[in-house]
Amino acid sequence: MPAGKFTQDELDQIYAFAVDLGRKAGDLLMERVEQRIDGSDAPQTFEEKENAVDIVTQTDEDVEVFIRDAIHTKYPTHKFLGEESYAKGESREYLLDAQPTWCIDPLDGTVNYTHLFPMYCVSIGFVVDNLPVIGVIYAPFQNQLFSACNGRGAWLNEKRRLPLIRNPIPPMPANAPSQCIFSCEWGKDRRDIPDGNMHRKIESFVNMAAEIGGREGKGGMVHGIRSLGSATLDLAYTAMGSFDIWWEGGCWEWDVAAGIAILLEAGGLITSANPPDDFDTASIPDVKLGSRLYLAIRPAGPSATESGRESQERTVREVWRRVRQLSYSRPGA
Amino acid sequence: MPAGKFTQDELDQIYAFAVDLGRKAGDLLMERVEQRIDGSDAPQTFEEKENAVDIVTQTDEDVEVFIRDAIHTKYPTHKFLGEESYAKGESREYLLDAQPTWCIDPLDGTVNYTHLFPMYCVSIGFVVDNLPVIGVIYAPFQNQLFSACNGRGAWLNEKRRLPLIRNPIPPMPANAPSQCIFSCEWGKDRRDIPDGNMHRKIESFVNMAAEIGGREGKGGMVHGIRSLGSATLDLAYTAMGSFDIWWEGGCWEWDVAAGIAILLEAGGLITSANPPDDFDTASIPDVKLGSRLYLAIRPAGPSATESGRESQERTVREVWRRVRQLSYSRPGA
Repeated sequence: MPAGKFTQDELDQIYAFAVDLGRKAGDLLMERVEQRIDGSDAPQTFEEKENAVDIVTQTDEDVEVFIRDAIHTKYPTHKFLGEESYAKGESREYLLDAQPTWCIDPLDGTVNYTHLFPMYCVSIGFVVDNLPVIGVIYAPFQNQLFSACNGRGAWLNEKRRLPLIRNPIPPMPANAPSQCIFSCEWGKDRRDIPDGNMHRKIESFVNMAAEIGGREGKGGMVHGIRSLGSATLDLAYTAMGSFDIWWEGGCWEWDVAAGIAILLEAGGLITSANPPDDFDTASIPDVKLGSRLYLAIRPAGPSATESGRESQERTVREVWRRVRQLSYSRPGA
Repeated sequence: MPAGKFTQDELDQIYAFAVDLGRKAGDLLMERVEQRIDGSDAPQTFEEKENAVDIVTQTDEDVEVFIRDAIHTKYPTHKFLGEESYAKGESREYLLDAQPTWCIDPLDGTVNYTHLFPMYCVSIGFVVDNLPVIGVIYAPFQNQLFSACNGRGAWLNEKRRLPLIRNPIPPMPANAPSQCIFSCEWGKDRRDIPDGNMHRKIESFVNMAAEIGGREGKGGMVHGIRSLGSATLDLAYTAMGSFDIWWEGGCWEWDVAAGIAILLEAGGLITSANPPDDFDTASIPDVKLGSRLYLAIRPAGPSATESGRESQERTVREVWRRVRQLSYSRPGA
């Protein structure tokens, strides 16, 4: 069976429900945006969570309630894990287990949303045995809906199959990370601590960016560095083939559950952001959903000398060679 | 008269032509994209210009020829300055003068385009007496067309007036750059030279990002740092009000001519990226189109204690306090 106890037919029905739910939740986001634009709603306010850049709006909470209620009505036996209800709890434990669970971010890219920068979205993941098997990501201002169901391919707006270029799917560049777009985020941990997460991230970014031969041999001369402010959309664009590499520490399972389902179904690879000591030879571990440490590589086809998977694994090692270990943890993961 | 020797009526006609031209050029970009997606076109190739991340495709050149021919036919007396024809010349001189000139980037965000990341666009600026008075920016994959004509307002898709939030237009935050989205690009100069442009940029980015009190008092704790890989779209989103601050060195007049027209018409401010020694008290100079050094602030309305312009100028000084001078120059600018 494709995913634990579910038949493909059952999964297909859940998938159709998730796509419909994603569109409705995105439309709700857009309604609020229209009210702000036409002046019928009060100016956007937000509350700070961990610090001044970790924020939540009433919209996050309202959309989460909308999604949760719809799921509880349709699938009363399924578990629900949403960013805002989780954040209100006292624990930071990883709560997913073998049960079928909806893992939801009602509004990813909340900072973008408050500023009306279009890179915000709804993220709906359905997880079975800790593996995301259905994902729906909808960015309503851009009318971009990314979706996938185990066994059914990954799609943009239900009509363009992902990755976009697939006749044939290009291998990773022979000299990766050169010729790659590297997607990464500055994140919310801005503490100016020597060797803290912010400085380790920056050191890693600079290694990826610098000319070949620079940075004591670590210069990666990537084609470009992109930061959108939405981990969810970073993953969606990696599944689409637009970003070659996404490297991130600090986000949470609801930021990535839907994106992982879409990336894997499109043929991408996702593993840990943190390089093992023997990064050149270590086996490439499967991602841990709650690890807060992610490295994704876009779908890749074969070349004359390598399988697609081989070119992805080679790229993982070339990233690991250039990045620092990040320090994010949580109980239970 | 609104712009040199042109009446408003003449400008309106040129504007209508420019919008139509922008759409047609964008459609041409999308045709090529569709051919790559359906496999009827060969895989994307590109040539390197100054280095491995400064690239040009046949599409850049074809779209520039299309735009240039259309302008020559319609306005044979106007000057034309396009990125690709300029880049083929031997000089790096600034070529704009008092004559009415079309300043064009046929494809901004070429790296994004080759990877099919949607943040690429056509940029068409019309410049009179060195001042951009008409701007059209069209990102066809997202169907986002930004446009403005001196005296006619700035618009998204010819129906949403910019900035998006205007009932009322919010002032800049009292504690800017905190609560601001800071837009910036890593750029093409990746030389790992101590105190070179790349390292000066990074030092500036980190100052803007770090917690308040960090970085020896320079920490700006911005809401977010965004890098799209398109200076043109950075400016468009600043005009839209989505980005609060855009700071950039190294791009060229064809990257910014259309965006400056749109930003100014929306009520934004644009000046030099490089802080003067007396940044706290210096007058804020008008941007020089060919300076390759740009600092843009989004449209801002009044607060109880400041005019919109005052809050923009305060923000300029707070950015200048935190950024390094960059070293880009050119003859004739």
